[in-house]
Amino acid sequence: MAEKTETTPGWLTPEELELTRARMPILYVDAVPVRVDGTGVVTHIGLLLRIGADGAVTRALVSGRVLHHERVRDALVRHLEKDLGPVALPQVPVSPQPFTIAEYFPTQGVTPYHDPRQHAVSLAYIVPVVGDCRPRQDALDLVWFTPEEASSPLVQQEMSGGQGILLKQALAHVGVLS
Amino acid sequence: MAEKTETTPGWLTPEELELTRARMPILYVDAVPVRVDGTGVVTHIGLLLRIGADGAVTRALVSGRVLHHERVRDALVRHLEKDLGPVALPQVPVSPQPFTIAEYFPTQGVTPYHDPRQHAVSLAYIVPVVGDCRPRQDALDLVWFTPEEASSPLVQQEMSGGQGILLKQALAHVGVLS
Amino acid sequence: MAEKTETTPGWLTPEELELTRARMPILYVDAVPVRVDGTGVVTHIGLLLRIGADGAVTRALVSGRVLHHERVRDALVRHLEKDLGPVALPQVPVSPQPFTIAEYFPTQGVTPYHDPRQHAVSLAYIVPVVGDCRPRQDALDLVWFTPEEASSPLVQQEMSGGQGILLKQALAHVGVLS
Amino acid sequence: MAEKTETTPGWLTPEELELTRARMPILYVDAVPVRVDGTGVVTHIGLLLRIGADGAVTRALVSGRVLHHERVRDALVRHLEKDLGPVALPQVPVSPQPFTIAEYFPTQGVTPYHDPRQHAVSLAYIVPVVGDCRPRQDALDLVWFTPEEASSPLVQQEMSGGQGILLKQALAHVGVLS
Repeated sequence: MAEKTETTPGWLTPEELELTRARMPILYVDAVPVRVDGTGVVTHIGLLLRIGADGAVTRALVSGRVLHHERVRDALVRHLEKDLGPVALPQVPVSPQPFTIAEYFPTQGVTPYHDPRQHAVSLAYIVPVVGDCRPRQDALDLVWFTPEEASSPLVQQEMSGGQGILLKQALAHVGVLS
Repeated sequence: MAEKTETTPGWLTPEELELTRARMPILYVDAVPVRVDGTGVVTHIGLLLRIGADGAVTRALVSGRVLHHERVRDALVRHLEKDLGPVALPQVPVSPQPFTIAEYFPTQGVTPYHDPRQHAVSLAYIVPVVGDCRPRQDALDLVWFTPEEASSPLVQQEMSGGQGILLKQALAHVGVLS
Repeated sequence: MAEKTETTPGWLTPEELELTRARMPILYVDAVPVRVDGTGVVTHIGLLLRIGADGAVTRALVSGRVLHHERVRDALVRHLEKDLGPVALPQVPVSPQPFTIAEYFPTQGVTPYHDPRQHAVSLAYIVPVVGDCRPRQDALDLVWFTPEEASSPLVQQEMSGGQGILLKQALAHVGVLS
Repeated sequence: MAEKTETTPGWLTPEELELTRARMPILYVDAVPVRVDGTGVVTHIGLLLRIGADGAVTRALVSGRVLHHERVRDALVRHLEKDLGPVALPQVPVSPQPFTIAEYFPTQGVTPYHDPRQHAVSLAYIVPVVGDCRPRQDALDLVWFTPEEASSPLVQQEMSGGQGILLKQALAHVGVLS
């Protein structure tokens, strides 16, 4: 569904996207939404809640494709708005330097990241949000976790494709990994 | 003068500070105040305006010491508030990773940075400010420059101790160095 | 020509690549080859020399696509070996964090980077090389410049597509931009 | 003992250092020695082994003060040579940007880092070493661990002052935290 809304003239049809996914690495952005205190310390991390077809709970980062002729910054804003709603007020980083690159391979084990659909290379950013988050689209909810909770086995096992590890890398980058 | 206000029990007297400066590297923070647009692009850089004893115009970054038992984040907030006023609303970075380290040597030419008073090692951060800036203490004004203006020879020659180069490094880090 | 050698089963034919370039951002890596002294200070930057059809001298960074199912690290090594020869002994960075992201747009002015063929998003790395460089393929030579020379107008005007600015960002990142 | 060898004219006597430690943050460097494969992937982390007065095994990173009028790079090289011996061939990072800042407080709980002797602020770097390591001074041995071993509870509990967390941050930065 998400892909359809992204299809405008000059972009890919679902069939073309399918074909391209088998031939090229696809550029993504991953965003870790965080709440911070007045000195920039991360106090909470926001994870999207989804219920799978099998009823399983899945927690996910904000994530999505960068489109043709779209700046990475604009893709970040677009996906944050799509997933967190229009009044989340995300503070997009001033530097294009991501805190890491997550390489999702269709084959397991090449990297810690896995996406059965495609080879996706994702630029990962930490994004403070200061407004109200109202998840839209296919997410049921956005839940805020403390850094301790976010790196706990309980939350980690509810994340898939290696996003739990990406989350821990984010916690390490902001200095709150325990 | 500035040093006096920082002297509380357990910290250094001006004489002790003088002595220590001749024996140890002193830890500093440098902050580059910026205005950003809605996608995080830096549109303006704020520089403090000072008039020297000889009437010369000097432009400077927000800069100052980290005190004993003070977190780097708290030092950043303290110096930003001291130099930009209480309603500047600085967004202190979520990561402790500075964009660079500026090593100010009392001897010229060891690094691009120079401070005749001391060997100072400064952790440099870029800090978006979203509120009103009202310079206090010894600064006359805070002037906002576009990235082009900030890296122009005119502004560069009004900065001292290598801060012009540090400013260009900041512009490079956020992708607006021309 | 370069593209042909990259076409293996499962990858794109030149026609498919052409089509995809009009529809998707293409993932690239840019590498800035450097010589360093014993303490890690960059002393020289290596630029490829090419002569255009019109006889104009062009200087370029090591640059190229990331292929399907190829790790970014392997793409870096492949392009470094392709452009610098098999005994350059590049020291690929230990962290996947690039020093910046260069977004090359087919339209001028969106970012400082421009590629008339495509929308390319490039992960940019600084790579010390300790061996002998023997350019292959379409480059005539690899020339080593001091940081001052590399950021001089003379060298900058021989670089195209914004790579001169990317080079200056690299110099800033390693602390040798003047 | 280590401090004495660092005392030359213009530097601090042990008594002065003691006094200063109670009044100023002291600048340190932390280095995480690593072995890498040909594509820059970290395969092993080197930890110093020390036996405490009580017979307890302690594992530590390479760590030490930055002296007056000493560049951070030179301090890194000096401490690496002191702890790993003269033929370790460390590859000091080209960028002064550390992967994080570790703030060791004399009071527990302010940050994850703790040093009962002082308030130390440490610039943390990951340093590939390609030569032979022969620990000197007070370390008994240097032991190489895989990333999995390094982040295991067994190794983590043998590290003190929060260095286990700093090590995990380093693993996260190079993309091998599991």
